[in-house]
Amino acid sequence: MNIIKPKKYPTLYYCPGHLSFAPHVVLNELGKPFELARLSIKAGDTQRESFRKLNPKGKVPVLITENEILTESSAILLYLALSHPESGLLPPTPVGAARAIEWLNWLSCMLTGVIALNFHPSRFTDEVESFNGIKARGRLEVIKVFEQINHRLAENQWALKEGYSIVDPVVLIYFRWGTLLELDMNQFSHWAAHTQRMLQRPAVQKALATEEIVIGN
Amino acid sequence: MNIIKPKKYPTLYYCPGHLSFAPHVVLNELGKPFELARLSIKAGDTQRESFRKLNPKGKVPVLITENEILTESSAILLYLALSHPESGLLPPTPVGAARAIEWLNWLSCMLTGVIALNFHPSRFTDEVESFNGIKARGRLEVIKVFEQINHRLAENQWALKEGYSIVDPVVLIYFRWGTLLELDMNQFSHWAAHTQRMLQRPAVQKALATEEIVIGN
Ligand SMILES: N[C@@H](CCC(=O)N[C@@H](CS)C(=O)NCC(=O)O)C(=O)O
Ligand SMILES: N[C@@H](CCC(=O)N[C@@H](CS)C(=O)NCC(=O)O)C(=O)O
Repeated sequence: MNIIKPKKYPTLYYCPGHLSFAPHVVLNELGKPFELARLSIKAGDTQRESFRKLNPKGKVPVLITENEILTESSAILLYLALSHPESGLLPPTPVGAARAIEWLNWLSCMLTGVIALNFHPSRFTDEVESFNGIKARGRLEVIKVFEQINHRLAENQWALKEGYSIVDPVVLIYFRWGTLLELDMNQFSHWAAHTQRMLQRPAVQKALATEEIVIGN
Repeated sequence: MNIIKPKKYPTLYYCPGHLSFAPHVVLNELGKPFELARLSIKAGDTQRESFRKLNPKGKVPVLITENEILTESSAILLYLALSHPESGLLPPTPVGAARAIEWLNWLSCMLTGVIALNFHPSRFTDEVESFNGIKARGRLEVIKVFEQINHRLAENQWALKEGYSIVDPVVLIYFRWGTLLELDMNQFSHWAAHTQRMLQRPAVQKALATEEIVIGN
């Protein structure tokens, strides 16, 4: 694919089913025009020089606005919420914003850590004979952190007690990764119920259709 | 040690030389009263049940305010900046806040990923014979990400173009970890200069003295 120069702003660079799904949902929630640029990680798009000019880290999501190139899911989500305070997608208090970032930072670290152990053992060593041990550890650890996610979702309908926010679409995409790891995601009953609530949102349905992915069993 | 119930708010739970150093510096910068509770990760304090009641993830930093228990460095830093807008420790625009979180999220992921490969290979596998391969990969990757940090510090005096912020103390503590990994940190010349500027700040000097650590060669 060509890494096109955006014709419209904001433009979100995304890869179907990846972390970019979360800002994609949030852009749908905002209901203002935006453009999508689709990449295929499998085809190597995120490692091409043209894309690395946008994001030297070679990762999606990337959000291009008229003046800025933003990377890191948590930063993009925070930016979208703060620049659209009327959306109510972030509690308007210091502690509310901090609670959102507490979730997002923790989940991001989980992606580079525990989740990657399962999907990408080759990121952690050159030695092919170590991959199974890394995956085995990843499998144990992912269940532990998924139990923590589930536990945190027990108290409220949404990730934050204040209501639906930029955190919920991120929580949803991690559910998908659990399914891809062939975990029985119904063991995480609060999280499974959260997923059902998410799937009723038009912004989520639209993003799933556009990305041509499904979430759930 | 006893995980004491705080007598004063806010109380920061920290371990010398760890990521908690960053909110420690920021609390010094704010110049308002706070309490510190010192833990030893080596002695197992972060894994004790009493501490896990505060933070089930078993990590520092943790900040206790009168009403809240906050975890995740990025969230604590954001909270401190947002609740003290007069401190000027976070640019007061959506994009400025997003740029701060872009740095903080990226650095946090680096800690759980690349940095941990070097310091804690046992987090990634049970198989002792895989540790050297994991460390070797960690060594390669850490130099790549440290070059990116250095590159990002080339343009301005501080991590954000708007000026000194909650990001800079985090950047400083990563410099220390490079030294502990026996990397020649002078190869990262912009970062080394940033460290020198940081070491001139009274808030940094005070935190170093309290934590009884040094940064630099
Ligand atoms: N810390 C980043 C992580 C982003 C990330 O890991 N993205 C993955 C997809 S979920 C990616 O783009 N991988 C492409 C590659 O490694 O080439 C964030 O929060 O945005
Ligand atoms: N994502 C967390 C990471 C915190 C973290 O990894 N802290 C380390 C020290 S730098 C820790 O407390 N380790 C204790 C342990 O693993 O028992 C954050 O950003 O605060």
